Amino acid sequence: MEKMKDLAYYNGTVTRIADMMIPAGDRGFYFGDGIYEVAMVFHRKIFALEEHLDRMERSAAMVRIELPMVRREIGDLLQELADRVESDCQFLYWQITRGTAPRNHLFPAGTASNLYVYSKPWPGVEMSDDYRLVSVTDTRFLNCNIKTLNLLLNVLAAQTAKENGCQEAVFVRDGIVTEGSHSNVSMIKDGVFITHPADNLILPGVERRHMIAYCGELGIPVEERPFTLEELKGADEIIMSSTSHPSMRVREIDGVAVGMKDAATVEKLRKMYLYEVEKRGQ
Amino acid sequence: MEKMKDLAYYNGTVTRIADMMIPAGDRGFYFGDGIYEVAMVFHRKIFALEEHLDRMERSAAMVRIELPMVRREIGDLLQELADRVESDCQFLYWQITRGTAPRNHLFPAGTASNLYVYSKPWPGVEMSDDYRLVSVTDTRFLNCNIKTLNLLLNVLAAQTAKENGCQEAVFVRDGIVTEGSHSNVSMIKDGVFITHPADNLILPGVERRHMIAYCGELGIPVEERPFTLEELKGADEIIMSSTSHPSMRVREIDGVAVGMKDAATVEKLRKMYLYEVEKRGQ
Repeated sequence: MEKMKDLAYYNGTVTRIADMMIPAGDRGFYFGDGIYEVAMVFHRKIFALEEHLDRMERSAAMVRIELPMVRREIGDLLQELADRVESDCQFLYWQITRGTAPRNHLFPAGTASNLYVYSKPWPGVEMSDDYRLVSVTDTRFLNCNIKTLNLLLNVLAAQTAKENGCQEAVFVRDGIVTEGSHSNVSMIKDGVFITHPADNLILPGVERRHMIAYCGELGIPVEERPFTLEELKGADEIIMSSTSHPSMRVREIDGVAVGMKDAATVEKLRKMYLYEVEKRGQ
Repeated sequence: MEKMKDLAYYNGTVTRIADMMIPAGDRGFYFGDGIYEVAMVFHRKIFALEEHLDRMERSAAMVRIELPMVRREIGDLLQELADRVESDCQFLYWQITRGTAPRNHLFPAGTASNLYVYSKPWPGVEMSDDYRLVSVTDTRFLNCNIKTLNLLLNVLAAQTAKENGCQEAVFVRDGIVTEGSHSNVSMIKDGVFITHPADNLILPGVERRHMIAYCGELGIPVEERPFTLEELKGADEIIMSSTSHPSMRVREIDGVAVGMKDAATVEKLRKMYLYEVEKRGQ
């Protein structure tokens, strides 16, 4: 089969991403009534696929969306679709919505959920030593642990970051730092790795969990606890992490110089990540 | 022009509702990045159109979405589309999303916002004396005054209502009753009309505002203030209101009999609504 530069899939149909059409009645369009995942493809393999499928299952269960096929079939389909894209390194996105039906808040009867997937080339592992953050008030819903399509406030926060010359926003709720607009925030202080508990106020990031595991292997103590913006500003290092941007080192928050004081620990964590990418790709 | 049974419009294309296809890259689909309105068509005229256009403009401004055409053009287009549908009485829906682009939280450059509209036959003015409510915890975002497409928690609440043999859910946040999953909640107690203030915790419903205006004309005192679920249960009357369901009288909350003690006042408010519908239709 000829490989494609990029690819989209919707309930069995495959096109280029820009060409994909969906019914307006997809409940993703009316209500954001769906969940999603993003995974990286490195060396043609989906990185941490099982962890993403775990989270997909949890998100779907929490919003009571039935998967359109069994978990393993979804995993196999995703790999199959990634195999049809030219690049060895890809950004792979998939979302599951609660079917297609005339608009009505109630769950529709007699319609299967919709699976939409796309995959596109990605330049490689994205890391940065030059991230700047702007803080924004976190007024999002109290279900941030679910990876839903209700992302309007995340969109607005990301845009606020850009307009302030920053790469990410950091949400602050009642004085407590929760997470970024599309990444988790963690800090290193006096050799301890500190990150917000994986409760309903943040997305349980796969890279966040990987970092905690790396800390375990490296003998770095971990504290999962709330912290304030002031405490964050006083950290030795601040790391924003997500699947596509696993280690973004922060040098500025709200225009004030922060972090950048424990390069050695950041380096250790990054090495673990790169080792993992290479090992799983073999 | 031959009239249609129902109709959908998307950026200039017109089809039957069930046939409308949109690009998967519409930001409504990825992020719920859009706002919407619903209005009734009575006697072929859009009821309270200017109020809905007002709110549309306010919602769009709050999420920084530019309208795809000027307000008056949108109003004229909506009436023109309604004119193409057979029924005199219609349910008219429109939504505006932040354009079509490759998925990225940041506002896309060089794409206009998308206007999607549909209109379908509606049986007529829907009122009920037999509404039952279930209370649910309100964990939604603190931007409920914006009529956005981020409605997943409203979907879940509506479904919870149905599964409890109810017609609507009523959200309770920190002990305070906010609103329903797709309607406002108001009560009458000792001849006073009481409803939650139009702050960031509720949608400023057009029918809610109409009812306040009717109270003014009828000499019924109005209090816009927070109230608890217990207070609601002790009310003489409880009315759920929305554009499509303007006066739903509640007889039960969480399985307990409530309200139904001041039919005369409910009747006065309903008469005002029906008078308005007839007057504007002339």
